[in-house]
Amino acid sequence: MTFERIRAEGVPELGPESLSNCKKFGDQIFISGMVSWDEDQKIVGGNDAYRQAKTVFSYIRSLMEAAGGKMDDIIKINMFVTDMRYQPDVWKARREVFTGDFPCSTLVCVSSLFLPELLVEIEAVGFIGGGG
Amino acid sequence: MTFERIRAEGVPELGPESLSNCKKFGDQIFISGMVSWDEDQKIVGGNDAYRQAKTVFSYIRSLMEAAGGKMDDIIKINMFVTDMRYQPDVWKARREVFTGDFPCSTLVCVSSLFLPELLVEIEAVGFIGGGG
Amino acid sequence: MTFERIRAEGVPELGPESLSNCKKFGDQIFISGMVSWDEDQKIVGGNDAYRQAKTVFSYIRSLMEAAGGKMDDIIKINMFVTDMRYQPDVWKARREVFTGDFPCSTLVCVSSLFLPELLVEIEAVGFIGGGG
Repeated sequence: MTFERIRAEGVPELGPESLSNCKKFGDQIFISGMVSWDEDQKIVGGNDAYRQAKTVFSYIRSLMEAAGGKMDDIIKINMFVTDMRYQPDVWKARREVFTGDFPCSTLVCVSSLFLPELLVEIEAVGFIGGGG
Repeated sequence: MTFERIRAEGVPELGPESLSNCKKFGDQIFISGMVSWDEDQKIVGGNDAYRQAKTVFSYIRSLMEAAGGKMDDIIKINMFVTDMRYQPDVWKARREVFTGDFPCSTLVCVSSLFLPELLVEIEAVGFIGGGG
Repeated sequence: MTFERIRAEGVPELGPESLSNCKKFGDQIFISGMVSWDEDQKIVGGNDAYRQAKTVFSYIRSLMEAAGGKMDDIIKINMFVTDMRYQPDVWKARREVFTGDFPCSTLVCVSSLFLPELLVEIEAVGFIGGGG
C-alpha cells in the first residue's frame, strides 16, 4: 500500500516540487493547509474571512469527494487566522459544511499566512467512511 | 467502523455545531486544542501559564480515560503559547503527566488564542494501548 | 503493539521528561517539531533560514531512516517560520529532499520559536513504505 495523490477539479494545485493538496494512505486522508486563492494565486473572497473560509471549505469538500469520501469523514481540522476577530466568521463557515458531531478542531491566530491578503488557512485529517 | 465522539465528565464541551473535544476511530484518538476554561468559558488558573497548562492536561487525561486509554497512550502533542516565556511553565506541567519516553511534541508561540486571557492551548493524538 | 521511540545518531535529543524526537506505532511515524541546533542547543546555520531548514530536514531524514523508512515516506509536514520572508528559503530546502509527489504541507508564520535565533521549525507524519 502506497500514498495516492488526490487532485480535484477546480481546486488550485501548486506546481511540481512544492506540495500536494491531498494524499491518501489506505482510508486515511491528509489535506494541506488550504487557502482562498485561484489557480493564479489571486485571492478569492476579498478581505472577508467568511467568504475566504467558505472557499477553503469548498476546496476541502472537493478533495474529500475526489478521494471517495465526504465532509463528515473529516475527524480533525486546524484553522489558522491572522486576526482572532475572524473567529466568528470562520465558525459560521464551518457550521455550514459539517453535520452531526463536528470534527475535533484547533483554531489559533498566527502572524501571517502565505500572502498578506489571506485571512484564514485550514488543514484537515480524515478517514474515508469514518463519518458513517 | 465509524467515528465515536468521546465526552468526559468535568471537561467543558462547546455547543452543537462547533466542535468535538475528542473523537475516536478504531484505536486512534484525536483531541482538539484544549484550553483552561470552565463550562461558562470562564478562565481557570488565572494569569498563570502553569496552572492553565495543568488544567488543560487534566482535561486531556479525562478524555483519554473516557476513551479507554491513559496519558501515555498519547503519541504527539502540539502546544501553542501566547508568550515564549510560558515555555518553562508548560514543560513543568507536561513533566507531571507523562512517564517513560515522552510523546513527540511541538511548541510554538502564536499571536493569540480564543480569548485574550488564555495563555496556552494543547492538542493531542494518541492510540489506545500504544503506551504499553 | 506499542510505541517505539526512534533515536538517530547525530540528531540532538533533549533530556528525559521533555519530549521524544520521533515515535513509531506500527508503520506510522510521528516527528516532533525539529529545529536547527546541536546537542548543546547552539544554533546551526546562523541567521540563514535556508541553512537552518537544511539542517532540520537532515535531522528528519536521519530519523526516518532510523525508523526504517525514507524521506518520501513522509505524508505531511508542518512548517513554522518566524518571518514569511523565509518561505522561499524553506521551500528551496524542501525541494532538495523530496521526490515525486511532494507531501501535504502547511506553512504559517508564528511569533517565535523555542529560541529567538531559530527561524524555522518543521514537524512530520509518515508511514514506513508509503512512499513506494
